[in-house]
Amino acid sequence: MQIAIPLYDGFTALDAIGPYEVLQQLPDNEVVFCAPEARTYRTESSMLGVSADKGFEDVAHPEVVVVPGGLGNRRWLSGPNPYTEWLAAVHETTIYTTSVCTGSLLLAAAGLLDGVDAATHWAARDTLAELGANPVPERVVERGKIFTAAGVSAGIDMALRLVESIAGATAAQAVQLGIEYDPDPPHDTGSVEKAPPELVAAARAVLEQTDAEVAKRLGIG
Amino acid sequence: MQIAIPLYDGFTALDAIGPYEVLQQLPDNEVVFCAPEARTYRTESSMLGVSADKGFEDVAHPEVVVVPGGLGNRRWLSGPNPYTEWLAAVHETTIYTTSVCTGSLLLAAAGLLDGVDAATHWAARDTLAELGANPVPERVVERGKIFTAAGVSAGIDMALRLVESIAGATAAQAVQLGIEYDPDPPHDTGSVEKAPPELVAAARAVLEQTDAEVAKRLGIG
Repeated sequence: MQIAIPLYDGFTALDAIGPYEVLQQLPDNEVVFCAPEARTYRTESSMLGVSADKGFEDVAHPEVVVVPGGLGNRRWLSGPNPYTEWLAAVHETTIYTTSVCTGSLLLAAAGLLDGVDAATHWAARDTLAELGANPVPERVVERGKIFTAAGVSAGIDMALRLVESIAGATAAQAVQLGIEYDPDPPHDTGSVEKAPPELVAAARAVLEQTDAEVAKRLGIG
Repeated sequence: MQIAIPLYDGFTALDAIGPYEVLQQLPDNEVVFCAPEARTYRTESSMLGVSADKGFEDVAHPEVVVVPGGLGNRRWLSGPNPYTEWLAAVHETTIYTTSVCTGSLLLAAAGLLDGVDAATHWAARDTLAELGANPVPERVVERGKIFTAAGVSAGIDMALRLVESIAGATAAQAVQLGIEYDPDPPHDTGSVEKAPPELVAAARAVLEQTDAEVAKRLGIG
Protein backbone atom coordinates (compact mmCIF):
# COMPACT_ATOMS: atom_id res chain seq x y z
CA MET A 1 0.00 0.00 0.00
CA GLN A 2 1.35 3.40 -0.99
CA ILE A 3 0.48 6.36 1.25
CA ALA A 4 1.20 9.74 -0.35
CA ILE A 5 1.70 12.97 1.61
CA PRO A 6 1.77 15.89 -0.85
CA LEU A 7 3.76 18.92 0.32
CA TYR A 8 3.96 22.59 -0.65
CA ASP A 9 5.88 25.59 0.63
CA GLY A 10 4.21 26.98 3.75
CA PHE A 11 2.70 23.69 4.97
CA THR A 12 2.19 22.97 8.67
CA ALA A 13 4.75 20.40 9.77
CA LEU A 14 2.71 18.51 12.36
CA ASP A 15 -0.22 18.13 9.93
CA ALA A 16 2.04 15.95 7.79
CA ILE A 17 4.29 14.33 10.40
CA GLY A 18 1.60 13.29 12.91
CA PRO A 19 -0.13 11.01 10.36
CA TYR A 20 3.26 9.94 8.94
CA GLU A 21 4.40 8.67 12.34
CA VAL A 22 1.20 6.65 12.73
CA LEU A 23 0.85 5.35 9.16
CA GLN A 24 4.49 4.35 8.61
CA GLN A 25 3.87 1.64 11.22
CA LEU A 26 1.38 -0.17 9.00
CA PRO A 27 3.04 -3.34 7.74
CA ASP A 28 3.77 -3.68 4.01
CA ASN A 29 3.31 -0.01 3.33
CA GLU A 30 5.33 2.80 1.77
CA VAL A 31 4.84 6.40 2.84
CA VAL A 32 6.04 8.77 0.13
CA PHE A 33 6.39 12.53 0.47
CA CYS A 34 5.69 14.10 -2.91
CA ALA A 35 4.97 17.50 -4.48
CA PRO A 36 4.64 19.23 -7.84
CA GLU A 37 8.42 18.83 -8.08
CA ALA A 38 10.83 16.74 -6.01
CA ARG A 39 12.78 19.09 -3.75
CA THR A 40 12.88 20.36 -0.16
CA TYR A 41 9.83 22.29 1.01
CA ARG A 42 9.80 24.74 3.92
CA THR A 43 7.13 24.98 6.59
CA GLU A 44 4.96 28.01 7.41
CA SER A 45 7.63 29.48 9.68
CA SER A 46 10.33 28.61 7.09
CA MET A 47 12.39 27.22 10.00
CA LEU A 48 12.08 23.60 8.85
CA GLY A 49 12.77 21.86 5.55
CA VAL A 50 11.22 18.50 4.61
CA SER A 51 12.12 16.50 1.52
CA ALA A 52 9.54 15.63 -1.13
CA ASP A 53 11.33 12.62 -2.58
CA LYS A 54 9.10 12.30 -5.63
CA GLY A 55 7.35 14.61 -8.07
CA PHE A 56 3.64 14.11 -8.72
CA GLU A 57 4.38 12.47 -12.06
CA ASP A 58 5.94 9.54 -10.17
CA VAL A 59 3.04 9.06 -7.73
CA ALA A 60 0.05 8.38 -9.96
CA HIS A 61 -1.93 5.77 -8.04
CA PRO A 62 -1.45 6.02 -4.24
CA GLU A 63 -3.90 3.97 -2.21
CA VAL A 64 -4.05 6.64 0.52
CA VAL A 65 -3.52 10.40 0.32
CA VAL A 66 -3.00 12.64 3.37
CA VAL A 67 -3.16 16.36 2.54
CA PRO A 68 -1.60 18.64 5.17
CA GLY A 69 -2.85 22.15 5.88
CA GLY A 70 -0.86 25.33 6.08
CA LEU A 71 -1.06 29.02 5.38
CA GLY A 72 0.92 28.52 2.17
CA ASN A 73 -1.91 26.62 0.49
CA ARG A 74 -3.87 29.63 -0.77
CA ARG A 75 -1.66 29.44 -3.86
CA TRP A 76 -3.60 26.31 -4.87
CA LEU A 77 -7.14 27.25 -3.83
CA SER A 78 -8.33 28.78 -7.12
CA GLY A 79 -7.90 28.19 -10.82
CA PRO A 80 -6.36 25.19 -12.56
CA ASN A 81 -3.09 24.24 -10.90
CA PRO A 82 -0.88 21.18 -10.59
CA TYR A 83 -1.68 20.53 -6.93
CA THR A 84 -5.48 20.26 -7.08
CA GLU A 85 -5.34 18.63 -10.52
CA TRP A 86 -3.18 15.87 -9.05
CA LEU A 87 -5.54 15.52 -6.06
CA ALA A 88 -8.60 15.19 -8.32
CA ALA A 89 -6.81 12.65 -10.52
CA VAL A 90 -5.49 10.37 -7.76
CA HIS A 91 -8.79 10.52 -5.86
CA GLU A 92 -10.33 8.46 -8.67
CA THR A 93 -8.43 5.38 -7.51
CA THR A 94 -7.58 5.98 -3.85
CA ILE A 95 -8.94 3.76 -1.11
CA TYR A 96 -8.87 6.72 1.29
CA THR A 97 -8.47 10.42 0.56
CA THR A 98 -7.77 12.38 3.73
CA SER A 99 -6.76 15.78 5.03
CA VAL A 100 -5.57 17.48 8.20
CA CYS A 101 -6.37 21.06 9.24
CA THR A 102 -6.73 23.37 6.20
CA GLY A 103 -5.77 20.49 3.94
CA SER A 104 -9.54 20.12 3.53
CA LEU A 105 -9.54 23.49 1.71
CA LEU A 106 -7.35 21.83 -0.92
CA LEU A 107 -9.71 18.85 -1.18
CA ALA A 108 -12.58 21.31 -1.63
CA ALA A 109 -10.67 23.33 -4.23
CA ALA A 110 -10.08 20.06 -6.09
CA GLY A 111 -13.84 19.59 -6.26
CA LEU A 112 -13.94 16.63 -3.88
CA LEU A 113 -16.09 18.14 -1.12
CA ASP A 114 -19.08 19.76 -2.87
CA GLY A 115 -21.85 19.60 -0.27
CA VAL A 116 -19.85 17.09 1.76
CA ASP A 117 -19.41 17.27 5.56
CA ALA A 118 -15.77 17.97 6.44
CA ALA A 119 -13.54 19.10 9.30
CA THR A 120 -10.90 21.82 9.17
CA HIS A 121 -9.00 24.14 11.51
CA TRP A 122 -11.53 26.10 13.60
CA ALA A 123 -10.38 29.41 12.13
CA ALA A 124 -10.95 28.19 8.55
CA ARG A 125 -14.55 26.95 8.74
CA ASP A 126 -15.92 29.96 6.80
CA THR A 127 -13.35 29.52 4.05
CA LEU A 128 -14.20 25.82 3.78
CA ALA A 129 -17.89 26.71 3.38
CA GLU A 130 -17.03 29.27 0.67
CA LEU A 131 -15.31 26.46 -1.22
CA GLY A 132 -18.53 24.42 -1.25
CA ALA A 133 -18.07 21.98 1.63
CA ASN A 134 -20.17 21.66 4.78
CA PRO A 135 -17.90 22.41 7.76
CA VAL A 136 -18.57 20.18 10.78
CA PRO A 137 -17.11 21.11 14.20
CA GLU A 138 -15.82 17.61 14.92
CA ARG A 139 -12.28 16.36 15.41
CA VAL A 140 -12.44 13.69 12.71
CA VAL A 141 -15.16 13.44 10.05
CA GLU A 142 -15.52 10.19 8.06
CA ARG A 143 -17.70 10.34 4.95
CA GLY A 144 -17.25 7.34 2.70
CA LYS A 145 -13.61 7.17 1.71
CA ILE A 146 -12.93 10.79 2.67
CA PHE A 147 -11.57 11.37 6.19
CA THR A 148 -10.95 14.97 7.28
CA ALA A 149 -9.41 16.14 10.55
CA ALA A 150 -9.63 19.38 12.50
CA GLY A 151 -6.56 21.53 13.19
CA VAL A 152 -2.94 20.34 13.27
CA SER A 153 -2.79 17.82 16.14
CA ALA A 154 -6.09 16.20 15.05
CA GLY A 155 -4.18 14.43 12.28
CA ILE A 156 -2.86 11.96 14.86
CA ASP A 157 -6.41 10.96 15.87
CA MET A 158 -7.47 10.79 12.22
CA ALA A 159 -4.54 8.57 11.28
CA LEU A 160 -5.26 6.17 14.14
CA ARG A 161 -8.83 5.82 12.89
CA LEU A 162 -7.45 5.23 9.41
CA VAL A 163 -5.19 2.44 10.71
CA GLU A 164 -8.23 0.90 12.37
CA SER A 165 -10.21 1.04 9.11
CA ILE A 166 -7.33 -0.49 7.15
CA ALA A 167 -5.90 -3.01 9.62
CA GLY A 168 -8.36 -3.37 12.51
CA ALA A 169 -8.69 -2.24 16.11
CA THR A 170 -5.82 -4.31 17.52
CA ALA A 171 -3.40 -2.81 14.99
CA ALA A 172 -4.57 0.70 15.88
CA GLN A 173 -4.13 -0.03 19.59
CA ALA A 174 -0.61 -1.35 19.02
CA VAL A 175 0.37 1.74 17.02
CA GLN A 176 -1.11 3.98 19.72
CA LEU A 177 0.95 2.19 22.35
CA GLY A 178 4.02 2.37 20.11
CA ILE A 179 3.82 6.18 19.99
CA GLU A 180 2.76 6.21 23.67
CA TYR A 181 -0.28 8.31 22.78
CA ASP A 182 -1.81 8.83 26.20
CA PRO A 183 -2.26 12.59 25.87
CA ASP A 184 -2.17 14.86 28.89
CA PRO A 185 -2.59 18.48 27.78
CA PRO A 186 -1.77 20.90 30.60
CA HIS A 187 -4.99 22.87 29.97
CA ASP A 188 -8.45 22.19 28.57
CA THR A 189 -8.32 24.94 25.96
CA GLY A 190 -7.67 22.93 22.81
CA SER A 191 -10.93 23.65 20.99
CA VAL A 192 -12.98 26.80 20.36
CA GLU A 193 -15.89 25.12 22.08
CA LYS A 194 -13.85 24.94 25.32
CA ALA A 195 -11.56 27.99 25.20
CA PRO A 196 -12.68 31.34 26.66
CA PRO A 197 -13.67 33.95 24.02
CA GLU A 198 -10.75 36.27 24.79
CA LEU A 199 -8.31 33.41 24.17
CA VAL A 200 -10.00 32.61 20.86
CA ALA A 201 -9.74 36.26 19.82
CA ALA A 202 -6.05 36.41 20.77
CA ALA A 203 -5.27 33.16 18.92
CA ARG A 204 -7.17 34.40 15.86
CA ALA A 205 -5.19 37.66 15.83
CA VAL A 206 -1.89 35.75 15.93
CA LEU A 207 -3.06 33.51 13.09
CA GLU A 208 -4.05 36.48 10.93
CA GLN A 209 -0.70 38.15 11.48
CA THR A 210 1.16 34.92 10.68
CA ASP A 211 -1.01 34.46 7.59
CA ALA A 212 -0.01 37.90 6.32
CA GLU A 213 3.68 37.19 6.99
CA VAL A 214 3.58 33.84 5.20
CA ALA A 215 1.72 35.32 2.22
CA LYS A 216 4.29 38.10 1.94
CA ARG A 217 7.25 35.74 2.22
CA LEU A 218 5.84 33.37 -0.41
CA GLY A 219 4.57 36.16 -2.66
CA ILE A 220 0.98 34.91 -2.65
CA GLY A 221 -2.48 36.16 -1.64
CA MET B 1 15.79 32.83 22.00
CA GLN B 2 17.36 30.02 19.99
CA ILE B 3 15.80 26.55 20.24
CA ALA B 4 17.99 23.79 18.82
CA ILE B 5 16.70 20.39 17.70
CA PRO B 6 19.69 18.12 17.02
CA LEU B 7 19.02 15.37 14.46
CA TYR B 8 20.70 12.10 13.50
CA ASP B 9 19.94 9.34 11.01
CA GLY B 10 17.26 7.04 12.38
CA PHE B 11 15.49 9.63 14.54
CA THR B 12 11.75 9.48 15.21
CA ALA B 13 10.03 12.23 13.25
CA LEU B 14 7.22 13.09 15.65
CA ASP B 15 9.68 13.37 18.58
CA ALA B 16 11.22 16.35 16.80
CA ILE B 17 8.24 17.81 14.94
CA GLY B 18 5.71 17.77 17.80
CA PRO B 19 7.83 20.12 19.93
CA TYR B 20 8.86 22.11 16.83
CA GLU B 21 5.22 22.86 16.01
CA VAL B 22 4.59 24.08 19.55
CA LEU B 23 7.84 25.98 20.13
CA GLN B 24 8.00 27.78 16.77
CA GLN B 25 4.95 29.72 17.96
CA LEU B 26 6.89 31.39 20.75
CA PRO B 27 7.40 35.04 19.76
CA ASP B 28 10.95 36.26 19.09
CA ASN B 29 12.37 32.80 18.80
CA GLU B 30 14.34 30.83 16.24
CA VAL B 31 14.04 27.06 15.98
CA VAL B 32 17.10 25.58 14.30
CA PHE B 33 17.51 21.98 13.19
CA CYS B 34 21.15 21.03 13.53
CA ALA B 35 23.38 17.95 13.52
CA PRO B 36 27.03 16.91 13.48
CA GLU B 37 27.01 18.10 9.86
CA ALA B 38 24.44 20.17 7.93
CA ARG B 39 22.60 17.83 5.55
CA THR B 40 19.35 15.91 5.23
CA TYR B 41 18.75 13.20 7.85
CA ARG B 42 16.38 10.26 7.37
CA THR B 43 13.96 8.95 9.96
CA GLU B 44 13.84 5.45 11.47
CA SER B 45 11.79 4.11 8.58
CA SER B 46 14.02 5.99 6.09
CA MET B 47 10.79 7.15 4.39
CA LEU B 48 11.22 10.80 5.41
CA GLY B 49 14.07 13.29 5.07
CA VAL B 50 14.39 16.37 7.27
CA SER B 51 16.99 19.10 6.77
CA ALA B 52 19.52 19.97 9.44
CA ASP B 53 20.26 23.52 8.31
CA LYS B 54 23.29 24.00 10.54
CA GLY B 55 26.21 21.94 11.77
CA PHE B 56 26.94 21.79 15.49
CA GLU B 57 29.86 24.22 15.07
CA ASP B 58 27.34 26.93 14.16
CA VAL B 59 25.01 26.31 17.12
CA ALA B 60 27.20 26.82 20.15
CA HIS B 61 24.88 28.54 22.64
CA PRO B 62 21.22 27.63 22.16
CA GLU B 63 18.92 28.68 24.98
CA VAL B 64 16.78 25.54 24.60
CA VAL B 65 17.70 22.06 23.31
CA VAL B 66 15.14 19.41 22.38
CA VAL B 67 16.70 15.97 21.76
CA PRO B 68 14.50 13.57 19.79
CA GLY B 69 14.56 9.83 20.30
CA GLY B 70 14.89 7.13 17.69
CA LEU B 71 16.32 3.70 17.13
CA GLY B 72 19.26 5.25 15.28
CA ASN B 73 20.67 6.84 18.41
CA ARG B 74 22.59 3.81 19.71
CA ARG B 75 25.47 5.07 17.56
CA TRP B 76 25.94 7.88 20.09
CA LEU B 77 25.28 6.03 23.38
CA SER B 78 28.86 5.03 24.20
CA GLY B 79 32.33 6.44 23.91
CA PRO B 80 33.39 9.95 22.97
CA ASN B 81 31.40 11.19 19.97
CA PRO B 82 30.39 14.52 18.43
CA TYR B 83 26.72 14.23 19.39
CA THR B 84 26.99 13.76 23.15
CA GLU B 85 30.03 16.04 23.33
CA TRP B 86 27.92 18.83 21.80
CA LEU B 87 25.07 18.08 24.21
CA ALA B 88 27.35 18.26 27.24
CA ALA B 89 28.92 21.49 26.00
CA VAL B 90 25.70 23.38 25.21
CA HIS B 91 24.03 22.17 28.40
CA GLU B 92 26.45 24.41 30.31
CA THR B 93 24.61 27.52 29.09
CA THR B 94 21.09 26.36 28.18
CA ILE B 95 18.04 27.65 29.98
CA TYR B 96 16.28 24.33 29.31
CA THR B 97 17.72 21.01 28.16
CA THR B 98 14.97 18.63 27.09
CA SER B 99 14.32 15.30 25.41
CA VAL B 100 11.50 13.26 23.93
CA CYS B 101 11.24 9.46 23.99
CA THR B 102 14.68 7.81 23.84
CA GLY B 103 16.26 11.24 23.49
CA SER B 104 16.78 10.90 27.23
CA LEU B 105 19.22 8.06 26.53
CA LEU B 106 21.37 10.62 24.72
CA LEU B 107 21.15 13.05 27.64
CA ALA B 108 22.21 10.21 29.93
CA ALA B 109 25.06 9.20 27.62
CA ALA B 110 26.22 12.83 27.70
CA GLY B 111 26.47 12.56 31.50
CA LEU B 112 23.55 14.89 32.22
CA LEU B 113 21.27 12.45 34.03
CA ASP B 114 23.45 10.68 36.60
CA GLY B 115 21.00 9.73 39.37
CA VAL B 116 18.41 12.13 37.94
CA ASP B 117 14.71 11.27 37.49
CA ALA B 118 13.81 11.14 33.80
CA ALA B 119 11.12 9.92 31.40
CA THR B 120 11.66 7.85 28.26
CA HIS B 121 9.74 5.53 25.94
CA TRP B 122 8.22 2.72 28.03
CA ALA B 123 10.27 0.08 26.22
CA ALA B 124 13.55 1.89 27.01
CA ARG B 125 13.28 2.29 30.78
CA ASP B 126 15.84 -0.46 31.50
CA THR B 127 18.32 1.04 29.05
CA LEU B 128 17.90 4.47 30.63
CA ALA B 129 18.64 2.95 34.06
CA GLU B 130 21.75 1.23 32.68
CA LEU B 131 22.97 4.66 31.56
CA GLY B 132 22.75 5.98 35.12
CA ALA B 133 19.42 7.82 35.19
CA ASN B 134 16.39 7.06 37.34
CA PRO B 135 13.49 6.18 34.99
CA VAL B 136 10.14 7.57 36.11
CA PRO B 137 6.90 6.27 34.54
CA GLU B 138 5.45 9.73 33.97
CA ARG B 139 4.55 11.55 30.77
CA VAL B 140 6.67 14.62 31.47
CA VAL B 141 9.36 14.86 34.16
CA GLU B 142 10.69 18.29 35.16
CA ARG B 143 13.87 18.36 37.24
CA GLY B 144 15.45 21.78 37.40
CA LYS B 145 16.19 22.88 33.85
CA ILE B 146 15.94 19.35 32.46
CA PHE B 147 12.54 18.35 31.04
CA THR B 148 12.16 14.80 29.70
CA ALA B 149 9.11 13.33 27.98
CA ALA B 150 7.86 9.76 27.55
CA GLY B 151 7.46 8.17 24.11
CA VAL B 152 6.98 10.02 20.80
CA SER B 153 3.66 11.89 21.20
CA ALA B 154 4.56 13.00 24.75
CA GLY B 155 6.83 15.64 23.21
CA ILE B 156 3.75 17.75 22.47
CA ASP B 157 2.74 17.79 26.14
CA MET B 158 6.34 18.48 27.20
CA ALA B 159 6.67 21.39 24.76
CA LEU B 160 3.42 22.97 25.99
CA ARG B 161 4.76 22.84 29.55
CA LEU B 162 7.98 24.39 28.30
CA VAL B 163 6.03 27.25 26.66
CA GLU B 164 4.27 27.78 29.97
CA SER B 165 7.57 27.91 31.85
CA ILE B 166 9.04 30.36 29.33
CA ALA B 167 6.07 32.57 28.48
CA GLY B 168 3.28 31.83 30.97
CA ALA B 169 0.00 29.93 31.08
CA THR B 170 -1.94 32.18 28.70
CA ALA B 171 0.71 31.77 26.01
CA ALA B 172 0.60 27.99 26.45
CA GLN B 173 -3.19 28.00 26.19
CA ALA B 174 -3.08 30.10 23.00
CA VAL B 175 -0.56 27.73 21.41
CA GLN B 176 -2.67 24.74 22.43
CA LEU B 177 -5.71 26.32 20.78
CA GLY B 178 -3.64 27.23 17.72
CA ILE B 179 -2.75 23.56 17.15
CA GLU B 180 -6.29 22.56 18.19
CA TYR B 181 -4.86 20.14 20.74
CA ASP B 182 -8.02 18.63 22.16
CA PRO B 183 -6.94 15.01 21.82
CA ASP B 184 -9.44 12.23 21.29
CA PRO B 185 -7.61 8.91 20.95
CA PRO B 186 -9.92 6.17 19.68
CA HIS B 187 -8.76 3.77 22.43
CA ASP B 188 -7.35 4.01 25.93
CA THR B 189 -4.25 1.95 25.22
CA GLY B 190 -1.62 4.66 24.98
CA SER B 191 0.47 3.68 28.00
CA VAL B 192 1.82 0.39 29.35
CA GLU B 193 -0.05 1.08 32.56
CA LYS B 194 -3.36 0.97 30.63
CA ALA B 195 -2.76 -1.46 27.76
CA PRO B 196 -3.45 -5.20 28.21
CA PRO B 197 -0.31 -7.37 28.62
CA GLU B 198 -0.75 -9.16 25.28
CA LEU B 199 -0.83 -5.81 23.47
CA VAL B 200 2.33 -4.70 25.27
CA ALA B 201 4.05 -7.94 24.26
CA ALA B 202 2.98 -7.53 20.62
CA ALA B 203 4.12 -3.89 20.51
CA ARG B 204 7.44 -4.83 22.10
CA ALA B 205 8.00 -7.56 19.49
CA VAL B 206 7.36 -5.10 16.65
CA LEU B 207 9.77 -2.59 18.24
CA GLU B 208 12.50 -5.20 18.59
CA GLN B 209 12.13 -6.23 14.95
CA THR B 210 12.19 -2.60 13.80
CA ASP B 211 15.22 -1.97 15.98
CA ALA B 212 17.08 -4.81 14.30
CA GLU B 213 16.12 -3.54 10.83
CA VAL B 214 17.21 0.03 11.60
CA ALA B 215 20.51 -1.16 13.12
CA LYS B 216 21.22 -3.25 10.03
CA ARG B 217 20.33 -0.43 7.60
CA LEU B 218 22.49 2.09 9.46
CA GLY B 219 25.30 -0.38 10.12
CA ILE B 220 25.24 0.08 13.89
CA GLY B 221 24.67 -1.98 17.02
